[in-house]
Amino acid sequence: MECKRTEHIKSFIVMDVLERAQELEKQGADIVHLEVGEPDFDTPWPIKGAAIKALIDGETHYTHSLGIRELREAICEYYEQNYGIKNLNPDRVVVTSGSSPAFLIAFGALMNAGDEIILSNPCYACYPNFAHFLQARPVYVNVEEDDGFQFQPERIKEAITNKTKAIMINSPANPTGHLIDADRLQAIAEMDLWIFSDEIYHGLVYDGQKAHSILEFTDKCFVFNGFSKLFAMTGWRLGYVIVPENFVRPVQCMAQNFFISANAPAQRAALAALTHPMVAQEVNKMVDMYDKRRKFMIKRLKEIGFKIVREPKGAFYVFANAKEFSQNSFELAFEILENAHVGVTPGIDFGSNGEGFLRFCYANSLDLIERGLQRIEEYLHSRTK
Amino acid sequence: MECKRTEHIKSFIVMDVLERAQELEKQGADIVHLEVGEPDFDTPWPIKGAAIKALIDGETHYTHSLGIRELREAICEYYEQNYGIKNLNPDRVVVTSGSSPAFLIAFGALMNAGDEIILSNPCYACYPNFAHFLQARPVYVNVEEDDGFQFQPERIKEAITNKTKAIMINSPANPTGHLIDADRLQAIAEMDLWIFSDEIYHGLVYDGQKAHSILEFTDKCFVFNGFSKLFAMTGWRLGYVIVPENFVRPVQCMAQNFFISANAPAQRAALAALTHPMVAQEVNKMVDMYDKRRKFMIKRLKEIGFKIVREPKGAFYVFANAKEFSQNSFELAFEILENAHVGVTPGIDFGSNGEGFLRFCYANSLDLIERGLQRIEEYLHSRTK
Repeated sequence: MECKRTEHIKSFIVMDVLERAQELEKQGADIVHLEVGEPDFDTPWPIKGAAIKALIDGETHYTHSLGIRELREAICEYYEQNYGIKNLNPDRVVVTSGSSPAFLIAFGALMNAGDEIILSNPCYACYPNFAHFLQARPVYVNVEEDDGFQFQPERIKEAITNKTKAIMINSPANPTGHLIDADRLQAIAEMDLWIFSDEIYHGLVYDGQKAHSILEFTDKCFVFNGFSKLFAMTGWRLGYVIVPENFVRPVQCMAQNFFISANAPAQRAALAALTHPMVAQEVNKMVDMYDKRRKFMIKRLKEIGFKIVREPKGAFYVFANAKEFSQNSFELAFEILENAHVGVTPGIDFGSNGEGFLRFCYANSLDLIERGLQRIEEYLHSRTK
Repeated sequence: MECKRTEHIKSFIVMDVLERAQELEKQGADIVHLEVGEPDFDTPWPIKGAAIKALIDGETHYTHSLGIRELREAICEYYEQNYGIKNLNPDRVVVTSGSSPAFLIAFGALMNAGDEIILSNPCYACYPNFAHFLQARPVYVNVEEDDGFQFQPERIKEAITNKTKAIMINSPANPTGHLIDADRLQAIAEMDLWIFSDEIYHGLVYDGQKAHSILEFTDKCFVFNGFSKLFAMTGWRLGYVIVPENFVRPVQCMAQNFFISANAPAQRAALAALTHPMVAQEVNKMVDMYDKRRKFMIKRLKEIGFKIVREPKGAFYVFANAKEFSQNSFELAFEILENAHVGVTPGIDFGSNGEGFLRFCYANSLDLIERGLQRIEEYLHSRTK
């Protein structure tokens, strides 16, 4: 290959699972998809309506490179209402085409080649790739099943070197569905490193839980969020990053150069997501349904023989211990796909410490979850005989 | 600043002009905008209709990371019809949120830190910044006014070192509005370096001209294009890059990681742009209007005293020699803004060899162009008295 930079950037295994599933579907197989982390819900109507109005009104031109002002103000308002963050300056909000490109420019603004960023193991598979692209180095800190896959601040401290620039946190987390407790967030904030806080699953919390924003604990942070998960807007590609005051200019320069602006009608849609009174009701309905699915999935997975030491209370994932069935999550995932026709994601996709686990996504209908788990049960039990 | 990478990434002067213009507007001034390179036209209705249909149909989910298949096929078809490029594999097309992020991942796939890319001076202000972000090095080759600001292949050869990885071409060009002749494209293709060809202004050509795709001359290239300019779709953020077969996987990996996919309804809109029978008529009307404005603007600029040695026949820019009025294009642009209330872009924004020039954009109504140039004439003539 031509470029060293991309050598370490791997495709996700979940994509390989999905591609193989689609091949089987073309051959006529009926596949249940529990692998992809995407809401099955359609985007609520008031949001779609706002985009349609924008199109009719001719909002088809570039916007301000940071995003339309009303949207950035609404985001600040949202962080005030939900987390009590006061006087957040809308000029610190950079609206991007999904939260993914926001990681790229925030990492780019902070990390030099050779710098280190601390990631949990397991973690979202993209994080290390942003670092690799910039020739920075991901440093992994194991998080443990019996600890709800939370960062242990002492372990972070052990991993810090003079190259460490930042710590990435993600609560609720992909792939584990777990939250980080407030006291641990506090301890992490006190380390005086930069914190990248991926808050994309905020709002998707159950059982009376509440996710805290890192902004409640420190200003030395970049906060990533977006509309994909909570508002079922994955295909709109709209996210944002809240950056520290003195990073606004370099991040904005990169946004101007690399993206110019985000999609204009999608920004109007996002504004409706945060401000239209009917949207909150729709979101509550979705959250209730996710919670029902979550409970059902946890119960059934345990019945089948998967181990779930602590119940996940956020996002839409269950990260289940499958060591009873196999030590090799990659092989097990493909075995289940080929034999039970259910797509699941191998834990190894999220790091070496995810080996032996499978990620099950409950952003799918209760019927399909029931059918998928039934098939998995039948297959695994026939196999162990 | 925290990061060396961003030190060289500057904001565009055109943005400073625009921001100052907006300040003046807030104070009640009536500003004529000839600075920003964006079609004044609204996106044609059949294109908007396709997006609205997609929204109603619930196409609000992630698409394939390369883009929806129909769109990639239509892009291949478009390159066959317009340039005779046969059997282009749709899997070589990567659809992105505007062509800007396409540059980022294509540069990222090819360029290691320290590698060199040859750029024309002047050139589009973003090109060097993609290189800077990757800690690669832009190497400038002057292009000359009396040569229609075309690359001279001999000069490129002189600039080649053992670090040279690629040559960036852009025909029709921003900021000059000029095309590169076929024989020069041929000569550049024969240099056996990678060619990045920015074809975003293709279709916007006048006076019987035709822009050639670099794919007519070589396969050792990355071709960038998008819907912003020709279809008046800037705010949709939809572009693409056609990559060599063996770069599909690394570029796709980056696209997956950094963007996931492009906006789903915008992809349907783009498909309509290429395939809906009414769109071609709308585009022809826009091109006719640009051409009228172009002729008018060239005539008036010459009358005012700007020098235009060779007539630009593409894009929507006139890059006029303003040395008669000032050697300092930055000062002159702000002087014109403050005194004549017309926004223009200083040539220095596009490189040292653009000094002494001003870029005038004719993507604005004939009325406003007339008014703006009238004001500039009155101001400059009063000034020289």
